[in-house]
Amino acid sequence: MRMYDCILAKKAGRELNREEIEYIVDGFTDGSITDYQMSAFLMAVCLKGMTGEETLALTMAMAKSGDMLDLSPIVGKKADKHSTGGVGDKTTLIVGPIVAALGVPVAKMSGRGLGHTGGTIDKLESFPGFVTELSEQDFFMQVNRIKLAVMSQTANLAPADKKIYALRDVTATVDSIPLIASSIMSKKLAAGADVIVLDVKAGSGAFMKTEEDAILLAKTMVEIGNGAGRKTCAVVTDMSQPLGYNVGNSLEVEEAIAALHGAGAQDLMDASFTLAAQMLVGAGRAGDLKEAYGLAQQAVADGSAFEKFCEFIRAQGGDDGYAKGTKKFPRAGIETKVRAERAGYVCRMQTEEIGMVSLLLGAGRQTKESKIDLSAGIIMRVKIGDYVEEGDVLATLYTNDPSGVEEAGRRMLAAVEISGETVEKMSHVLAVIHGGEG
Amino acid sequence: MRMYDCILAKKAGRELNREEIEYIVDGFTDGSITDYQMSAFLMAVCLKGMTGEETLALTMAMAKSGDMLDLSPIVGKKADKHSTGGVGDKTTLIVGPIVAALGVPVAKMSGRGLGHTGGTIDKLESFPGFVTELSEQDFFMQVNRIKLAVMSQTANLAPADKKIYALRDVTATVDSIPLIASSIMSKKLAAGADVIVLDVKAGSGAFMKTEEDAILLAKTMVEIGNGAGRKTCAVVTDMSQPLGYNVGNSLEVEEAIAALHGAGAQDLMDASFTLAAQMLVGAGRAGDLKEAYGLAQQAVADGSAFEKFCEFIRAQGGDDGYAKGTKKFPRAGIETKVRAERAGYVCRMQTEEIGMVSLLLGAGRQTKESKIDLSAGIIMRVKIGDYVEEGDVLATLYTNDPSGVEEAGRRMLAAVEISGETVEKMSHVLAVIHGGEG
Repeated sequence: MRMYDCILAKKAGRELNREEIEYIVDGFTDGSITDYQMSAFLMAVCLKGMTGEETLALTMAMAKSGDMLDLSPIVGKKADKHSTGGVGDKTTLIVGPIVAALGVPVAKMSGRGLGHTGGTIDKLESFPGFVTELSEQDFFMQVNRIKLAVMSQTANLAPADKKIYALRDVTATVDSIPLIASSIMSKKLAAGADVIVLDVKAGSGAFMKTEEDAILLAKTMVEIGNGAGRKTCAVVTDMSQPLGYNVGNSLEVEEAIAALHGAGAQDLMDASFTLAAQMLVGAGRAGDLKEAYGLAQQAVADGSAFEKFCEFIRAQGGDDGYAKGTKKFPRAGIETKVRAERAGYVCRMQTEEIGMVSLLLGAGRQTKESKIDLSAGIIMRVKIGDYVEEGDVLATLYTNDPSGVEEAGRRMLAAVEISGETVEKMSHVLAVIHGGEG
Repeated sequence: MRMYDCILAKKAGRELNREEIEYIVDGFTDGSITDYQMSAFLMAVCLKGMTGEETLALTMAMAKSGDMLDLSPIVGKKADKHSTGGVGDKTTLIVGPIVAALGVPVAKMSGRGLGHTGGTIDKLESFPGFVTELSEQDFFMQVNRIKLAVMSQTANLAPADKKIYALRDVTATVDSIPLIASSIMSKKLAAGADVIVLDVKAGSGAFMKTEEDAILLAKTMVEIGNGAGRKTCAVVTDMSQPLGYNVGNSLEVEEAIAALHGAGAQDLMDASFTLAAQMLVGAGRAGDLKEAYGLAQQAVADGSAFEKFCEFIRAQGGDDGYAKGTKKFPRAGIETKVRAERAGYVCRMQTEEIGMVSLLLGAGRQTKESKIDLSAGIIMRVKIGDYVEEGDVLATLYTNDPSGVEEAGRRMLAAVEISGETVEKMSHVLAVIHGGEG
């Protein structure tokens, strides 16, 4: 087999078979296939696409390029949840405890934030003492004991994906549904869960800017997951504005805790219950989504989800006093209010830009090496469709670094568009993608 | 400017401007743009194409990447001729003397053969003593004195093309009309002629397999040449069978000499007169193609073209006694006749395969380092449309190396297809592409 022929075939729009795709992934990972051949191939994939069979084969080859976690020491059907990344997305902190409180094991590997989206690990580190570097054995034991653990990724999951992604990132070959889907799913498959629920974001703050693209990506990933024998489904959710109101690590934790008390923003509650419901149905804990949604609501209403959250924080060495009294979280020293310059209806938000503002305030990482300020961030005061008077607060910015404040305020103001006409409020969950029998 | 953005633009099918294209060519040539970015870009060009403006800008940027020959020390309008490469193509040896005999200066840089196509330099070295390593000054002086010189390429012509081609060759990005056209034309523009006549081959022995593609390539190159201020035109000629009858270096020289005496195969004579006519018109030596064609025929008929050929061989140190008595050329020691296994009409030839057979006999180079046997090759005995009886000779193979003879005979037989039905003879010149005013 020759890489040259594989490139030629894809360039001509022909379907590659599994052996060819494995040859490409293995060869690129071990260095026998060069960067320049791989980038030509990736560009051909971007422009000619891949069939479902090819995408599945690509995902499997990437998943098998490193460790494949064996979660069998954990009793029951293990559920995992993945978000394609958005601004203000703290659902893992809410969904995990709900599902675990209902008896479904959640064994989650998580990452740190980069660029305009945050990471669950960073958020959890808002709790003094919280440890995410668990051994595999401790991780398994904790899930068996309390049904919930979150550890930072230590295993060598899908190294092929890491290498391919680095090349895509510099060769303008990122935006291809088969490549995005295989990148995400290779890591999820390697992470070992039986049930995979995907939260695919659509809109100005998401990688997929249109609902149509997000649905296509969701369907592609659901097909891969089920094709690989995992029970997989997806929700497509709106990212035309931040999820909930808070953006930034400890600010998002505070909002997640409010949600666990039933007092979260409507979009946040809806997203969390919908995702939890899919996990519960996938794991066989409920017969259908409606029943599952009700169970999730009840776990919040009866306090069991919040209790599970506190138990989880304690189990990983964190101080759950902060969960019980969120005023304990340090607040950043500089507080700036961004006010509307005209009256009208909030009609649009440049959500990715809002993510960049929070990064500027210190809440995120420009590069992998950047230090983050856990207390920095934004509290949004408006949602799309809200009416504001001139001078009303649109958002409050929090930071400890005065250098970026002026720019942050200016960009924040520009990111929230106000119109004279009324704007309809959109529902947050745009689509639910059911998988076949996994 | 960033290469990433240029790749992204081409991937989206957008037109790049001259500054962007110069940035890419210069950056890749000086190493500041990586191979992997360039190969992604080249694949995007293959799949999204380039406009005429872009292709001209690409060609100019590549031409300017190295030496731009200044032929101004040569008096008059300098004419050059380029073939895209075929099997048995010895037209340069015929056209050069015809045009020079008619007073138009031909200052030709030429290359050596590689793969299934031969090179003019190799053919000329069949003459003992013939020297192709001329100094630039000697080259100019010879053209001024006798109107014809052929030297092997020593100048650093279009190094960007060399580097880009090497990458295309391993990334399956060769077959793109804008990339092929710019590769050929960058070298022609750098070589400095005022008049450029292109012979674009179409068919089983050519890079362009269909007449349609060959016409498109010809038109693209003519547009580039005229856009760059050179008087450029093209002929599209048939390469569904070898040109003339002989394939191999001294065998082709013998056939070229026969043609200079007016005794060449019809396709070879027609190709040579047509190309010569275009050069004569381009250089202003004749008013139209018909008149020019007549002048070319006359230069053969009155012996002046052959005389010019002998003068040219002598001028570069060669023994023109071989031209005057071609029996002097050594004939290879092993002669094998390939005979028809059935009666019928020759309906098709795998011409590239015939080129590979001549390579197997020792007439060509597998790699740049291979030594060639100037006496080895093939004399075809049939043309498409000819009727043969079982046992008739289809071709005679000549070699000094017994090891490849059996395979060569077998492959030669398979390369000539015979059918029970009559086959129409095609004309050799398929299309003439006139340029605008250059």
